[in-house]
Amino acid sequence: MATSVSSLILAVNAGSSSLKLALFTASPEPDLLCNWSASGIGSSDIRVKYSRHNNVKSDQINDHVSAFEFFLKTLDEDKENEPGSENISHICHRVVHGGSYTDPVEIDKTTLDRLAALSDLAPLSIPPYVYTYAIDPSVARQKNLRKYGFHGLSYAFILKSVAAFLHKPELQTSIIALHLGAGASACAIRDGLSIDTSMGLTPLSGLPGATRSGDIDPSLIFHYTAQGDNVGRMSYGKTRSMHITEAERVLNTEAGWKSLTGTTDFREIIEFVIISVGAFFVQLQGRVHALVFSGGLGENSSALRQAIVERSGCLGFDLLSNERNNNPPEGETVFDIGAARGGPKILVCKTNEELEIARQCIAKPEFWK
Amino acid sequence: MATSVSSLILAVNAGSSSLKLALFTASPEPDLLCNWSASGIGSSDIRVKYSRHNNVKSDQINDHVSAFEFFLKTLDEDKENEPGSENISHICHRVVHGGSYTDPVEIDKTTLDRLAALSDLAPLSIPPYVYTYAIDPSVARQKNLRKYGFHGLSYAFILKSVAAFLHKPELQTSIIALHLGAGASACAIRDGLSIDTSMGLTPLSGLPGATRSGDIDPSLIFHYTAQGDNVGRMSYGKTRSMHITEAERVLNTEAGWKSLTGTTDFREIIEFVIISVGAFFVQLQGRVHALVFSGGLGENSSALRQAIVERSGCLGFDLLSNERNNNPPEGETVFDIGAARGGPKILVCKTNEELEIARQCIAKPEFWK
Repeated sequence: MATSVSSLILAVNAGSSSLKLALFTASPEPDLLCNWSASGIGSSDIRVKYSRHNNVKSDQINDHVSAFEFFLKTLDEDKENEPGSENISHICHRVVHGGSYTDPVEIDKTTLDRLAALSDLAPLSIPPYVYTYAIDPSVARQKNLRKYGFHGLSYAFILKSVAAFLHKPELQTSIIALHLGAGASACAIRDGLSIDTSMGLTPLSGLPGATRSGDIDPSLIFHYTAQGDNVGRMSYGKTRSMHITEAERVLNTEAGWKSLTGTTDFREIIEFVIISVGAFFVQLQGRVHALVFSGGLGENSSALRQAIVERSGCLGFDLLSNERNNNPPEGETVFDIGAARGGPKILVCKTNEELEIARQCIAKPEFWK
Repeated sequence: MATSVSSLILAVNAGSSSLKLALFTASPEPDLLCNWSASGIGSSDIRVKYSRHNNVKSDQINDHVSAFEFFLKTLDEDKENEPGSENISHICHRVVHGGSYTDPVEIDKTTLDRLAALSDLAPLSIPPYVYTYAIDPSVARQKNLRKYGFHGLSYAFILKSVAAFLHKPELQTSIIALHLGAGASACAIRDGLSIDTSMGLTPLSGLPGATRSGDIDPSLIFHYTAQGDNVGRMSYGKTRSMHITEAERVLNTEAGWKSLTGTTDFREIIEFVIISVGAFFVQLQGRVHALVFSGGLGENSSALRQAIVERSGCLGFDLLSNERNNNPPEGETVFDIGAARGGPKILVCKTNEELEIARQCIAKPEFWK
């Protein structure tokens, strides 16, 4: 690996309305130099955070491109004379769906076209009897309709971090990992490989997110958009034709636990989570080293963690230490919030997709020739 | 209860393409006099079974009405001089969805209109945090979009039978019941009340059935019906508008484990089932008296039972007795196929929806005034 101190890696993590950027040294374990993020892109309420200054403007940002340009300008105008954009040797972009690419690749015309076309969506480690939907196999094959799973960078980071914490090789580490944030999912990892995940063909299925419905009856969206009141479940006449863009808009942006807040005290999301925990426990045949909480809610809500651990107590996990659950140590990537009474551990992992991006870039020798 | 020996109850269980009829004595525990069923109604392959004769014709059957008329004619022409249609005092019809009626009711214009309108769909025993989808609560309330659950008659029969077998009051009996047949579902029953079920707003969600997809990504159907090959998950342009009738036709009749057979050896359905078992085990907080198999596959496939019990062994259920699993006793409604090594029992229950219909009719004093 031919890195130099002046080489920097810029990790780019773009969402539909957000852009997260992190600048790292190109060292074997990348060091974070700065974080910059914009949220609410496309709305009237764009918010920018920059780890080097508290007060940053957002008035030049209209879209992802202008956000990126604004970041570069900010970086180069930086008064502290830290390394600027001229030192960036590698820009690494997260893609939601890698198609046939299961490892980082250099983006050129060919790879970009393939990612854009998504013409050859390939399996990761999920076995066929898990990724197969109960639909006509010829149509499924022709149209690549299968469970894919998402949040892969986060789970890669979590697996690596938890294995190190437990002093186990990754390929001997089995966990149930919960990524609970605005986007929420769960993943069953056996001996370092994902064997099931709550998300499916798209990130829509599985656990509800902040504005995403999670699993619903496949018929529900048609009833949801039907004309008139009191439609009930069989009044087909009042339902109308709809397009996927409308279905996905409603189910991705007008649903989820934000729409439920106040009425329910998170009981629905807790129920969804414990259902996944129970299902994955059986799929892992009970051989689990740890139940791992991550993501914005998973890392920060001690009440949510407590409810989930209590509700899944019958599976024989460690008990919760209220002291440790309520007082997470600063600066630790992984910490144990269990009472050490035996059984699989209860851990919190501060996930870091941008660091995972930089690490995966560093780890590919062909990127550094 | 003012019944007489000449009073008979006719239980009617009509499906979309089938009609099952059972004639019972109106005695405190109804005695079955005969069974008659027609399947494939609406297709070119109508099949009729009648418990009093082996060879029965189906040439006068075009639809459900002519099937019913043909049954009455057959009954009255019966050579054995058993009680005929003139002795039927009560005809009890199963409805898939009872709306606000949670108990049997006499059908008159008012009740029929209400069932037809389904204008006031009410909860059974499932708690709100389970029956609530993560969607806009005002739309959900207005349009009655919630998890309902189905197969209620079967689960009522199973609960009653298993409670009697275990010598427990129903309200102290907690089970995970699997109704595995052409339609398949699972139900978690705590202290005699259903607390969750795999089916949802409609019978489509949950476990795959013979021709029903079960849970899929809410976006899948749009991709399934898209124009052209290799659509992949984000090519919205190639997807088109669709109506619920088309979505339900594909997902209810062109999917399910029949479409998978041969390629997969039931591993998908086993995976779906163990996922439900694990989820329900946690929802019941591990307090389960028995795992109960019922329905055509559940009652008859010892291989399927073995696979499910082995794959969910980590939950501490009793082990399977191969001898008992492979040699079910004749004539028993409930039998134990476990090895009696401790843990929740593994039972098979021969479910009987028509008998449950007759029992519920007998049990309502107002029907016999």
